[in-house]
Amino acid sequence: MAEYDYKGRRPGRGEPFTAAPSRQVPPSQQRQQEVRLFGINACLAAFASRPDDLRKVYLTEPRISLMKAVLAWCVKQRIGYRLVGDADLAKLTGSQHHEGVCFETRRRPLLSLADLLADQPPAPAASLLIVFDGVGNPHNFGAVLRSAANFGAGGVILTADAGLSLSGAAYRVAEGGAEAVPLAKPQYGENLVAMLRDAGYSVAATVPTGGESIYAKPLPQRLALVFGAEGSGMSDTLITAADRRLTIPGTGNVESLNIAASAAVILAEHWRVTHE
Amino acid sequence: MAEYDYKGRRPGRGEPFTAAPSRQVPPSQQRQQEVRLFGINACLAAFASRPDDLRKVYLTEPRISLMKAVLAWCVKQRIGYRLVGDADLAKLTGSQHHEGVCFETRRRPLLSLADLLADQPPAPAASLLIVFDGVGNPHNFGAVLRSAANFGAGGVILTADAGLSLSGAAYRVAEGGAEAVPLAKPQYGENLVAMLRDAGYSVAATVPTGGESIYAKPLPQRLALVFGAEGSGMSDTLITAADRRLTIPGTGNVESLNIAASAAVILAEHWRVTHE
Repeated sequence: MAEYDYKGRRPGRGEPFTAAPSRQVPPSQQRQQEVRLFGINACLAAFASRPDDLRKVYLTEPRISLMKAVLAWCVKQRIGYRLVGDADLAKLTGSQHHEGVCFETRRRPLLSLADLLADQPPAPAASLLIVFDGVGNPHNFGAVLRSAANFGAGGVILTADAGLSLSGAAYRVAEGGAEAVPLAKPQYGENLVAMLRDAGYSVAATVPTGGESIYAKPLPQRLALVFGAEGSGMSDTLITAADRRLTIPGTGNVESLNIAASAAVILAEHWRVTHE
Repeated sequence: MAEYDYKGRRPGRGEPFTAAPSRQVPPSQQRQQEVRLFGINACLAAFASRPDDLRKVYLTEPRISLMKAVLAWCVKQRIGYRLVGDADLAKLTGSQHHEGVCFETRRRPLLSLADLLADQPPAPAASLLIVFDGVGNPHNFGAVLRSAANFGAGGVILTADAGLSLSGAAYRVAEGGAEAVPLAKPQYGENLVAMLRDAGYSVAATVPTGGESIYAKPLPQRLALVFGAEGSGMSDTLITAADRRLTIPGTGNVESLNIAASAAVILAEHWRVTHE
């Protein structure tokens, strides 16, 4: 690994790499607060929307020209960057799909439910929120974020455990979509279903079978769609508390659609009902 | 690895594992004709729909009870099975997602375009076919197959190069859906677009931007949807030859939807127009 300091200079022999002193936080806190993004679109979208969250840049030589603006920012802001090989990046990111770039960034803080709701257009305007219940596969979560960005979802709400889904792999699969969608988590004392209902949302649990067809009648303009992590499904409390259960119709030839496909189908149908 | 022969007996020390003689084909042909399926749903769906294609079974001890019928079949048909460890299965399948089981199976032969079209309900009945152009990511291909099975697509047509997408990983992601959807490949002399049009299909190229919104008017009852492999996209010849270009509307916050999400959205919309 050729290593450069935050001024873009390659350190001399024996001279250790130094990050800007103000950036230093204890390693344990760092793991909580930072995430290693990878994949070109995920990294560039994060840089475009929140450059101040950048902590360190790793890239392969062929990516230098594509990342010129990022490297200039690093020099100006005293952020370290490193030229590394493909194998180093694979190790750093835990993935073969790094596309030659990895950004260590501060995590976006999750909004409270109250703050997320305050940012939505007031009732009765159309708005769609996604509730992601349970620890999901990061690839599914990233794919849902990408569709959420495409169809203009107002936000994604993670229940207590779902934060684990927010890995670098999720950001990569979201192809930049993770930056366009506000993320929230109910804080202590915030009742998810009650607050959504108070804000005029119909809370719909998506279930593989036995719910009302999403096409039976037009989807509500203000819709909070609850998805459970594939496999474990969503918590019974949420299913019971929901205003309705929605099911995507089909042949029954497969048990169900993948969660990412389900989200895309219902988000698209909400778009059709509210925009077309 | 504990090894059992096709009669379910564990061979004695030094006695080599022997497959039933009639099953033996040269190794080079074998690679072409066989595929290692993995994942419980993919394996069970293949066994249910075409048990005669089973060549060999690998499984972990905890899967024995789930695979009882399969092992009974193996004994009866003189097909070898092996008890293996997780690490062995990871090596055999090239995946961590084997779920404790791998079936070596004969590949389903791809239908000719003529045979696929002969199996469809005659015009003007509703029918949806998917054309997969270019070498795609097996995960995307598998996800498309799962949605195709859910929405009752009449078949998936692979262009010349797309056969490479049909790996064990694609079957796993399809969760059994690959068995429910006929697969075809145009044979020498079969003109894809002309034959589809003759059979009453509107041939639609799906493009990320610039096409007609899928919601602008009801989708045609008989629709052949062409998807390009993500990244490389579809061949210009196909885009030019298509009757129309279709685009899924959206905010523009991400460049496009993932191909699997796009397929799910359009298949669902075709279902809505033809079933609801």
